[in-house]
Amino acid sequence: MTQFAYDINDFNLAATELCRYGRTLYQRDWSPATSSNYSIRLNDHCCALTSSGKHKGELTADDILVVDLDGQPLPHPQHKVDARPSAETLLHTQLYRRDPAIGAVLHTHSATAVVLSQLWPEDVLTLQGWELQKAFAGETSHEHPVAIPLFANDQNIDRLATAVEQRMAQQGQGHAYLIRGHGVYTWGKNISECFRHLEALEHLLGYQLQLLQLQQPIGTNNK
Amino acid sequence: MTQFAYDINDFNLAATELCRYGRTLYQRDWSPATSSNYSIRLNDHCCALTSSGKHKGELTADDILVVDLDGQPLPHPQHKVDARPSAETLLHTQLYRRDPAIGAVLHTHSATAVVLSQLWPEDVLTLQGWELQKAFAGETSHEHPVAIPLFANDQNIDRLATAVEQRMAQQGQGHAYLIRGHGVYTWGKNISECFRHLEALEHLLGYQLQLLQLQQPIGTNNK
Amino acid sequence: MTQFAYDINDFNLAATELCRYGRTLYQRDWSPATSSNYSIRLNDHCCALTSSGKHKGELTADDILVVDLDGQPLPHPQHKVDARPSAETLLHTQLYRRDPAIGAVLHTHSATAVVLSQLWPEDVLTLQGWELQKAFAGETSHEHPVAIPLFANDQNIDRLATAVEQRMAQQGQGHAYLIRGHGVYTWGKNISECFRHLEALEHLLGYQLQLLQLQQPIGTNNK
Amino acid sequence: MTQFAYDINDFNLAATELCRYGRTLYQRDWSPATSSNYSIRLNDHCCALTSSGKHKGELTADDILVVDLDGQPLPHPQHKVDARPSAETLLHTQLYRRDPAIGAVLHTHSATAVVLSQLWPEDVLTLQGWELQKAFAGETSHEHPVAIPLFANDQNIDRLATAVEQRMAQQGQGHAYLIRGHGVYTWGKNISECFRHLEALEHLLGYQLQLLQLQQPIGTNNK
Repeated sequence: MTQFAYDINDFNLAATELCRYGRTLYQRDWSPATSSNYSIRLNDHCCALTSSGKHKGELTADDILVVDLDGQPLPHPQHKVDARPSAETLLHTQLYRRDPAIGAVLHTHSATAVVLSQLWPEDVLTLQGWELQKAFAGETSHEHPVAIPLFANDQNIDRLATAVEQRMAQQGQGHAYLIRGHGVYTWGKNISECFRHLEALEHLLGYQLQLLQLQQPIGTNNK
Repeated sequence: MTQFAYDINDFNLAATELCRYGRTLYQRDWSPATSSNYSIRLNDHCCALTSSGKHKGELTADDILVVDLDGQPLPHPQHKVDARPSAETLLHTQLYRRDPAIGAVLHTHSATAVVLSQLWPEDVLTLQGWELQKAFAGETSHEHPVAIPLFANDQNIDRLATAVEQRMAQQGQGHAYLIRGHGVYTWGKNISECFRHLEALEHLLGYQLQLLQLQQPIGTNNK
Repeated sequence: MTQFAYDINDFNLAATELCRYGRTLYQRDWSPATSSNYSIRLNDHCCALTSSGKHKGELTADDILVVDLDGQPLPHPQHKVDARPSAETLLHTQLYRRDPAIGAVLHTHSATAVVLSQLWPEDVLTLQGWELQKAFAGETSHEHPVAIPLFANDQNIDRLATAVEQRMAQQGQGHAYLIRGHGVYTWGKNISECFRHLEALEHLLGYQLQLLQLQQPIGTNNK
Repeated sequence: MTQFAYDINDFNLAATELCRYGRTLYQRDWSPATSSNYSIRLNDHCCALTSSGKHKGELTADDILVVDLDGQPLPHPQHKVDARPSAETLLHTQLYRRDPAIGAVLHTHSATAVVLSQLWPEDVLTLQGWELQKAFAGETSHEHPVAIPLFANDQNIDRLATAVEQRMAQQGQGHAYLIRGHGVYTWGKNISECFRHLEALEHLLGYQLQLLQLQQPIGTNNK
């Protein structure tokens, strides 16, 4: 059937996965108080995305919407009347538009990411010397630096998405970025790889935060 | 039946919810060692409230009482002989009396709230610059400051409730307050919103406590 | 039947409880790596006690022994050939001998208790100003100081038990004590109260450890 | 049947155990983002080992391979086409070759082990004064020092395994070692003892990391 701009089986699969990862991410305390949003690409034109303001540990398929890559909602078999796409939809679609190899995006709010992003004085956090960097796709050594850009928080998501795109165009796409006092975005070819990236990133940010607690002055890297 | 001053179905629903949230709050380690108390409004005149001294992860409907908004116990279908309302009942009823839109109150004792409240030198903790502030009902930007008052602990709950009421009358109701070395009170239109507020608050207080660990001197905000 | 010096039903009940609390205490990470031991009084002459070297999250009734109040093993219906009483048996029986109102003893090894006990410079840690002190039986105000003695660790348990008894005889029994670099002992009229004491103590010690992380010099109380 | 160089029942038992411990180690957050590898000796000539790049909380028997003590894969009843031995296989076989009493090896990546190993300035971390040292086989007192060597991380595992062997030949085998910014290796006569060693080690490293957070300068032991 072509009543939707995507294969309904792909949607159902994506919705199941987003709900399942939601439970995991909530239990890890990375998506507290209805924060966070997650998406999975359905095809070249649209992605499945969590709707705004839902408890992320209790998502059901009804809480998953479809948007095109301009962030506009598309008709959806289980669309609830009160469901609206996440306010941060454009930060997801910016990634899907720029790189067809991106199949999933996770945005979360761990206390570690929030505090470290608020404190880090420079506009990039360079990870180096950690074995777990190899969890990012394509990284093969702890000696290769991994740069995580930081952005000021902004309630104007359109403007923020533009800033992210500009930085990536200039400095490369990388594996993840931080929004100060807010959280982290990371992505992967599919939701499983994306989650692996997030899990590694949380550990790596945790290492850096512990170094800050152990060293003065704030913002001096361990290298 | 009008043998009670409230709809028994409302009581049963509230009791079920209070027991369920008790399990969650105990598992989060926010209600250790029989501490904490929780309530849900039943109508304009009374609320359901946890009884004193119970293990909050093992509550049953028998552990839920009903009090009027002066804190006096009302007859109750499952009233245990040994059940008595929480010693802090008046801190719940103070909220229900002042604002008919408040439908639930949670008081908890996380280590984060206790330690931060003990250390914070001023009588208000102002949260600003954190995305998660938007989890409080009506907050729309990380840039808008959220003030959390602090009160000295007092075993005289009547006196403490009066102090809370006076401060709110002067400075506004806000979203939550801290009692030093004791814990936090927060509220919402229903138990679900109230829990969202608590979860956000715990993260926000955790951010502030981490800032204290990373910066000297104690009590200097990050702004 | 009088083939045992205790009621076998009491033993069975105690064994079930000790196994159940073992699972809880292991999950809390307070009894790592087969450490810790727990006991419940059976009568004026003996108590049920965990055997040495068992995984505390996987205890079965076979792992529970009976000792008299001199620490000597008594015949037991499910006595395993390889089971032997905990090396620290005498620290349990010292408590049962001195106070007939003590019905249960928990000895655990949380990282918080171990680190704080190793660092604390004085031979007593005085808790004051914390609402959770009221979780100890008989305490009614955060203003009343609660003294927790500290003892140097000693592989000679007989000598350590004597030191504990002497200190209690001189300074009062209190609610709990710490062994440096080792762990905590606490007790109660039954296992439920004893666990409440332990849970409160872990929070209270956690507060103090956080104060140490936030303040210099080490060992200066917050009062 | 002798179609394999090992008893297939031994393999099945080892695979079941490795999957079970994987779930536990993942839940403890010691094996994030597909990191870590675990092995169990099958006989004098080979061991069962986790394959590379798998989610350690979701291992199945298909993810367990067999290698000889030179690290070469052996035929295997459930060998997946894409399965390859861990890149760090030689760090496991080095241990099995040097000591026939070693029956299991666990390599994990807790944040505690990673951060402490990165910060510790000397090439050995000496644990002393902690009761939990007695969880290591053969240790009978907190007073006996336990030396944990540290090695620089190296993507050349052959070279790293040689460095480990040389250090052990000179300074003794000990109970465990750290690789800086990477993780920990520990071993035991069987997987249960090995896990007990790991659990104790994680607590002991956690104590040391907390001491670092509480004391200046970094790397000064508490003794």
